[in-house]
Amino acid sequence: MGVEIERKFLVDGDAWRDEVRESHAIAQGYLSRGAGNSVRVRSYDDQRAKLTIKGKEFGFSRLEFEYDIPIEDARELLELAQPLVIQKCRHIVGAGHRVWEIDVFEGAHDGLVLAEIELGDEAEDFERPRWLGREVTGEEAYYNSTLAGV
Amino acid sequence: MGVEIERKFLVDGDAWRDEVRESHAIAQGYLSRGAGNSVRVRSYDDQRAKLTIKGKEFGFSRLEFEYDIPIEDARELLELAQPLVIQKCRHIVGAGHRVWEIDVFEGAHDGLVLAEIELGDEAEDFERPRWLGREVTGEEAYYNSTLAGV
Repeated sequence: MGVEIERKFLVDGDAWRDEVRESHAIAQGYLSRGAGNSVRVRSYDDQRAKLTIKGKEFGFSRLEFEYDIPIEDARELLELAQPLVIQKCRHIVGAGHRVWEIDVFEGAHDGLVLAEIELGDEAEDFERPRWLGREVTGEEAYYNSTLAGV
Repeated sequence: MGVEIERKFLVDGDAWRDEVRESHAIAQGYLSRGAGNSVRVRSYDDQRAKLTIKGKEFGFSRLEFEYDIPIEDARELLELAQPLVIQKCRHIVGAGHRVWEIDVFEGAHDGLVLAEIELGDEAEDFERPRWLGREVTGEEAYYNSTLAGV
């Protein structure tokens, strides 16, 4: 168990691509969502996979529980995920002393690019890279579960 | 991953209590339920715990994925489970060549007793113990998720 504190932004332009450290193809879907919890299955490069339960949001924070699961299970669980499996390429991007995750969506959300930073506490400050766009933390339209049509 | 094939019955009387092999206190709740899937957290004797995902039902069968999780996680996940955590005592009961699970519900469903048998395939026959009541396989009112108010 952990508490996840993250902030999410739109992205302006492609300048961040010069600072990509690694990239992974992600497929993720939601098995269900109710009572404020979400249950997500995610595969990385179709090689490893995680099952993640997130509790209700409180400000920028939510409880998070994550478990490694066999990739064979993940492939079958993604079949159960409804209505949409999100396909995206995740890039790990350095910016000053910080590391960002930049997700470039494919398929139904082709063209959408979101940047996330994980913080130690809600008040923690951080440098804004020049490619950072409008903050969308907490906007339901940009939840991955919303993008998955849940 | 496995396919779960089980049949469920009401129970008449207490004669099964003479054949109890072991008993465990179970607490279980549902993190969410949607698109036909259910995600359940269950603790046994407040000592060990499992996270279980079940897919849609097809007749007596449904896909099932089960993972051991730390009991500390389970206690917190049960807090997230809404609206109701089911408390029950599960008895493992011998009857001829078969083993049954008999759940005696407590709290909100005090008085309810359900017997389940797991089968190798849907057509498999089995001996009916004399304490076996009406079959309720597939009746939504007797799903544990329904009993949990999901």
